[in-house]
Amino acid sequence: MSSGGESTFDWIDVRSEARAKAGLTRRVRPRTSDSTDLDLASNDYLGLAKDKRVAGAAAAATLKWGAGSTGSRLVTGSTELHAELEYELANFCGSQSALVFSSGYLANLGAVTALSGPGTAIVADQHIHASLIDGTRMSKADVVVADHCDVGKVRHALETRGKRRAIVVTDSVFSVDGDIAPLNELHEACRANGAALVVDDAHGLGVVGPGGRGAVAEAGIIKAPDVITTLTLSKSLGAQGGAVLGPSRVIKHLIDTARTFIFDTGLAPSSAAAALAAIKILREEPDRPERALTVAHDLSNRLKEAGFAVSTPTAAVVSVRAPSPEQAFQWAENCRAQGVIVGCFRPPSVPDQISRLRLTARADLTEADIERAVRVIRECAASSGVESRPR
Amino acid sequence: MSSGGESTFDWIDVRSEARAKAGLTRRVRPRTSDSTDLDLASNDYLGLAKDKRVAGAAAAATLKWGAGSTGSRLVTGSTELHAELEYELANFCGSQSALVFSSGYLANLGAVTALSGPGTAIVADQHIHASLIDGTRMSKADVVVADHCDVGKVRHALETRGKRRAIVVTDSVFSVDGDIAPLNELHEACRANGAALVVDDAHGLGVVGPGGRGAVAEAGIIKAPDVITTLTLSKSLGAQGGAVLGPSRVIKHLIDTARTFIFDTGLAPSSAAAALAAIKILREEPDRPERALTVAHDLSNRLKEAGFAVSTPTAAVVSVRAPSPEQAFQWAENCRAQGVIVGCFRPPSVPDQISRLRLTARADLTEADIERAVRVIRECAASSGVESRPR
Repeated sequence: MSSGGESTFDWIDVRSEARAKAGLTRRVRPRTSDSTDLDLASNDYLGLAKDKRVAGAAAAATLKWGAGSTGSRLVTGSTELHAELEYELANFCGSQSALVFSSGYLANLGAVTALSGPGTAIVADQHIHASLIDGTRMSKADVVVADHCDVGKVRHALETRGKRRAIVVTDSVFSVDGDIAPLNELHEACRANGAALVVDDAHGLGVVGPGGRGAVAEAGIIKAPDVITTLTLSKSLGAQGGAVLGPSRVIKHLIDTARTFIFDTGLAPSSAAAALAAIKILREEPDRPERALTVAHDLSNRLKEAGFAVSTPTAAVVSVRAPSPEQAFQWAENCRAQGVIVGCFRPPSVPDQISRLRLTARADLTEADIERAVRVIRECAASSGVESRPR
Repeated sequence: MSSGGESTFDWIDVRSEARAKAGLTRRVRPRTSDSTDLDLASNDYLGLAKDKRVAGAAAAATLKWGAGSTGSRLVTGSTELHAELEYELANFCGSQSALVFSSGYLANLGAVTALSGPGTAIVADQHIHASLIDGTRMSKADVVVADHCDVGKVRHALETRGKRRAIVVTDSVFSVDGDIAPLNELHEACRANGAALVVDDAHGLGVVGPGGRGAVAEAGIIKAPDVITTLTLSKSLGAQGGAVLGPSRVIKHLIDTARTFIFDTGLAPSSAAAALAAIKILREEPDRPERALTVAHDLSNRLKEAGFAVSTPTAAVVSVRAPSPEQAFQWAENCRAQGVIVGCFRPPSVPDQISRLRLTARADLTEADIERAVRVIRECAASSGVESRPR
């Protein structure tokens, strides 16, 4: 044991070297506010984060309410803005009730843990978001991981469970590949087995469903008494925060028991105001979500024609496979050097160890933007050693 | 099994009734922006949430950068503001490096999980914050809970651990009673046993230590190579978010491995700007923290004289014991009816099943505010069936 404590974290250096050798070192690269780069990496699917109505509402709310909410939601951290946002979210998406958290991550942790526990079986899709996985880890429940989008496996796990209560946990639109879960079939499997369905609609809200009301609304199960939907306010709505939607008795239960709701400072008023302004825009401009989808299909089709292994988008996420983490990284770096920012997803951020470029479509991308993006991605593939086989 | 799914959540009603009977139902009560209530419940210890310099900086940042950060910190969610805030936090508190999370809850989850794992023993104080407890639950480590502030028990647990690596996890200022951990003794026990010390300084920053630099700086161990400090930006700094401070190699390790950093949307630019403005004020007005402490001592002394069981504050938290959850609730309700907002902490938000009023001091409370608070709390004790024995 070191007397000066310098060796306490030596194990970190060993891990760090191993990651560097595997091409898995990550780097924080701060954006500038005046960047002219083409953003194909953010989750600002509707281009609302910088919309003047959204940013203006956030700024006004900060000046009126203060920069922070000052306390946990049950003490001083709930303002009229939070109440209005919860009403509007439920009303817009069509659920009975809603509860706002300070992040989508915490909404997922809160929903999964408060609705499970030692007397519960959780059946989770293999590709669910990290926050849902962490919720299952915290839950003390029996956890079964079902093959990706395999309803038969889910049904079997429910039928053979050793606990009375059960929840099935899935993303609606999976964040890495942008594919969509078989929500109706999953719901039927739940219904037949007395289980509840918990759906993370983070990447569905604002893009999928009638007027962007999300994948759970699209599936027609948002009002079901045994369905819980979680959302983020930080993607299509351009703000920060998360929410859980569901029957009022479930929302009341979360208020009483969800640790990440009770013990966390409430969402900043500015973020609540921004999300409210974004919902208003969605109501006024119901064609925005469709435009994001069209851009996604355009990107996907053109890259497929260029010979890449591209996902078929069901929302605004388009994923392009890369042969290795190193090549994915180099490809993304080369795009960046050409002014096109694309996501680079490598282990452990991918569920299947396959590295990818992750492109996101935005409703405010122009035809020229799409042309530029496809051209740069093609050119940079060649210079990164990524082969393509044009059709 | 119900064919319509209506009975799936019937178990919630059973739990709900049990909580109602035990006086443990919680209620969200949204604040208005023009309330004239006296706030003795928020964690806005320095009165900065509504400070025009803080709120103004947040509003300006929203207009410049947009309402949301648009992505995870490693994709598009890092702006120059985030980098500046990380530099300033480390610089102000005296640590080598800092990493900003979107909430203090997520900072704690990230720090505990990334620094532990199956090969690690965690020794945790019995009264640590919910977010640290959740971190230990997610960690897959061997977890030993040590009696509150009992360094002997911590040392014993470290000496008899079955794992090579170890971390000791504690709050600096405990959130319910406002008492302070024996940080130097804990650090010595860690040092003697090759363990790292992880300290949540959420309630220390801005109130304790030289110029409000926190309890870890006060203990003189903020630069130690085996100490990690976690913070919130949502209490003294009046914003939203959290941070981890420590040696650069640890911060780099968190960037590469902390799931709540990697998979969460970055903090909204407005909150980063608000926290930056608050740090600037702390530098310019180094007497603010002292004023918060003075107010806390005033409140505590006067309530002690009035015969209540009151904690002796080491920071801005003053706790007053109540005989039962029902009486604590009634007491707080009666104070609210008189325009004085106090925190009411009941199980499971208290570590020892004892319900309390939790009062927080603020640097901007006047002598008249303190007079009014003490008068109302005394009067409402009587009308709530809470006895006092004046000295």
